[in-house]
Amino acid sequence: MANFAIMGFGTVGKGVAEVLRLNSEAIAEKLGEPLNLKYILDIHDLSNTPYAKQAVSDFSVLENDPDLDLVVECIGGAKVALDFTRRALTAGKHVVTSNKELVATCGKELLAIAKEKNVNYLFEASVGGGIPVLRPLFQCLAANQIEEIVGVLNGTTNYILTRMVKGGIPFADALKEAQSKGYAEANPAADVEGLDAGRKICILSDLAWGREVSPEKISIQGISNVDLKDVGIASRAGYRVKLLGRALKTPDGRTAAYVAPHLVPEDCPVALVDDVFNAIMIRGNAVGDVMFYGRGAGSLPTASAVMGDVLDALNHRAKRRNLGWSEPADLVNIEKELPLYWYVRGEFTQAPEGEKLPDGAYITGPMTAETAKKQAENWGAAALLPVLRA
Amino acid sequence: MANFAIMGFGTVGKGVAEVLRLNSEAIAEKLGEPLNLKYILDIHDLSNTPYAKQAVSDFSVLENDPDLDLVVECIGGAKVALDFTRRALTAGKHVVTSNKELVATCGKELLAIAKEKNVNYLFEASVGGGIPVLRPLFQCLAANQIEEIVGVLNGTTNYILTRMVKGGIPFADALKEAQSKGYAEANPAADVEGLDAGRKICILSDLAWGREVSPEKISIQGISNVDLKDVGIASRAGYRVKLLGRALKTPDGRTAAYVAPHLVPEDCPVALVDDVFNAIMIRGNAVGDVMFYGRGAGSLPTASAVMGDVLDALNHRAKRRNLGWSEPADLVNIEKELPLYWYVRGEFTQAPEGEKLPDGAYITGPMTAETAKKQAENWGAAALLPVLRA
Repeated sequence: MANFAIMGFGTVGKGVAEVLRLNSEAIAEKLGEPLNLKYILDIHDLSNTPYAKQAVSDFSVLENDPDLDLVVECIGGAKVALDFTRRALTAGKHVVTSNKELVATCGKELLAIAKEKNVNYLFEASVGGGIPVLRPLFQCLAANQIEEIVGVLNGTTNYILTRMVKGGIPFADALKEAQSKGYAEANPAADVEGLDAGRKICILSDLAWGREVSPEKISIQGISNVDLKDVGIASRAGYRVKLLGRALKTPDGRTAAYVAPHLVPEDCPVALVDDVFNAIMIRGNAVGDVMFYGRGAGSLPTASAVMGDVLDALNHRAKRRNLGWSEPADLVNIEKELPLYWYVRGEFTQAPEGEKLPDGAYITGPMTAETAKKQAENWGAAALLPVLRA
Repeated sequence: MANFAIMGFGTVGKGVAEVLRLNSEAIAEKLGEPLNLKYILDIHDLSNTPYAKQAVSDFSVLENDPDLDLVVECIGGAKVALDFTRRALTAGKHVVTSNKELVATCGKELLAIAKEKNVNYLFEASVGGGIPVLRPLFQCLAANQIEEIVGVLNGTTNYILTRMVKGGIPFADALKEAQSKGYAEANPAADVEGLDAGRKICILSDLAWGREVSPEKISIQGISNVDLKDVGIASRAGYRVKLLGRALKTPDGRTAAYVAPHLVPEDCPVALVDDVFNAIMIRGNAVGDVMFYGRGAGSLPTASAVMGDVLDALNHRAKRRNLGWSEPADLVNIEKELPLYWYVRGEFTQAPEGEKLPDGAYITGPMTAETAKKQAENWGAAALLPVLRA
C-alpha cells in the first residue's frame, strides 16, 4: 500500500480526493497496490465531512511520518506552499502540485532539492489543467529540439474573448458574465492581466529548453484594453483575437517569451479554441506542430492530472524522473528585438504598407514592438495588436 | 553508451537515423549517455550510403550481440517483423516499433514475451504518427476511467475527404490527387477501406481498457462509397464528413469499436482537422474531453515518436513499463446493438422523424445500423451515414 496526503482542501484538493474515490480500483491496478489517502492538511475544520478521519492541521505530522510516500500540494501561492514543499521534499516525500505560481517562481530550487533527495517533484496540472502537455513535451517529444510553443493558456480570458467575438459584447460585460458563471474571480487581475498565462509559458519554457524563465522577467500584457471594434474587424478578416502565451528560440540561441493578445488566423487550430478550453501548440524540429486541447481548469480535470503524476511518481520511486532546469535563460528583449507582424487601426492619411483589412485596419510588419508603437503614434493609430504568423 | 539497431531502412527507418543525426546532443542529454546507432538491418545494399558501416543483412548479428540494448522495428507487416520482434525480445532486447499491423494483431503475445524477459515493447508511433497519444492515454490519464475514444486516425482518407469538402471534387479524383502527392499508395485499399484506422482504434482500445480488440473482429467501413452530394449537404448543414475510428464502453461494461465515415458537427474539434492531419479525442471520467492533434504520418514526425520511445525504454531498463492487455474484450455487435443517429437522404413520400437538412436529407435516430438500413430500404433512401453526437 502507498500512502499519500493532500495539503489544501479547496477546489483541486477536493477533486483529488474525489478522483481517488471514483477510480480507486483503476488506480490500484495501475499502481500495482492500493493507494491510501492518509492525511488531509487544511486550516478548516473537516470533522463534519467524510474526511474527518484523515484531517490534520499540523504539517509536522506529515513530515515525520516515515510511512507517508507522497504529498499533493494544493495550497496555492508561494509562501506556506513553498515552506511545506521544501520541508516535504527534504523529508524524502515525493511532491505533486497544481501550483503554477510556485513552480514558475521556485521550481528550480525545489527540483534541485528533489534531485538531492532522490524524490520526484511533478506538476503536470500546473499548465493546461487536465490536458496532458508537460509530460508529452519532456518525454514523447524528448528527441526533438523544441522551436516554438504557443498556447491559449488561460480559460477565463479565453471565455471573455469568445463572448466578445461571438456575442459581440464589450470586455467589461463579458468579464461580469464570466464572474457570474464562476469562471473569473472577484479580483480577476491575475487572469485578465495575463499573469496566470505568463506563469504557464514560463514553466513550458523551463522544461522545453532546460533554463529558467522567470515570470517577472518576461513581457506580459492582458486583455483589458482589447476593443470590441478590433475583435469584430479581426473576425470579418478571418482572424480571432486570442490571449497567447508564446515562447521561441531565436536563431542566436536565446529565448523569447511573452504574453499578449494576438490576431490569430482562423486556419491555425489555436484560433478555434473557444470558451474555457485551453490549447497548447508545440513545434519540434522532427515532429512539426502538435497540439494538445482540453479543459484548462476545473476540479476534476485538474485532479486527473494531479493523480496521473501521483501514479507516475510512485512508479518511479527507485529511479526518479530526471527533471530540472538550470541558470536563467538568455532572454530576448521582446519590445526591442523580436520582429512581429502588427494589426493597426486608425484614420490614416498615408496607408501603412501591408495587408488591408476592413474599416481602416491594416496588417503591417515585420517590425519590433518599439518600432510599431512609434509608427502607430505617428499614424495616430487607435489600436495596435501583434499578429501570429506561421 | 547505449547501442541500438534499426531494422528496415524505409521511410520511418531513415527518419529515425536522421532524427538521431539532427538531435544527437539533445538525445544524449536526455538519456544521460550517448546513443549509438550500431546496426542497420536491411535487404538492400547500403554500401554507397553514409550508413555503410552499420549495414548488416543477418538478423542473428543483432540477436547475438550482448552489447545491443534496443532494436527499432520499421519493417512493417506481421511476418518477418513478427519473427524478428519475437526473437529480439526473447534475446532480452528492448523493442520500439511504428508497426500498427503487428501491434494490433500480435501485441498481446509480444507484450507477454516482453514482460517475461523484463524488457520494454513500446509503440507510440503506431497511432497518430508523431502525435503523443498512447503515452498520455496510459500515463497522464491513468487515474481516469476512459469512456470514449474518437479519432481522425488516417491522414490519406482525411486528405481525400478534405478535398471533397473544400474542393468539391469527387472521391475518385481526390484519390488520384492524393496518390500524385504521395499521400496515398498505388494500392490504397488499406487506407481507403478503413483497415489502417481500424488497426489504430484497436490499439487505443487495447490500452484504454486492458483487453484485446482484434481488427478482424470489429466493423470497418471505408470512404470509397461516400458521395460528393452528401459531403456537400452535410457542409451546408454545419457538419463535416470524417472517417472516424471510435471506441466506447457501453453501460453493461462491454466495448464497442468500429470505423465508419460520420457526419461530425462543426463545433466538435475533430470536425476541423483537415488535410493529412490526425486528431484523437479521449474522454475520461475525471478529465472530460482532451484532444491530441498533429501530423499522423511522415518520416520525421513518426521518427520523433519512435525516438521518444527509445529514450523512454532505455530510461526504464531496470523497471520496465508495465504495459499489456489480456483476453479478448466482450465486444458489442455494432450492427445490431449500438444505437446511433443517422443521416439519410432520399425522395421520401413520408419524411423520417428528426432534424430536416437541405436537399431531402434528414438526421434521424437513435437506432441500430440494422434498423437504420431496413428503414432506409423501405424509404428508398439513396444514402445513409452515422452522425457523431456529443
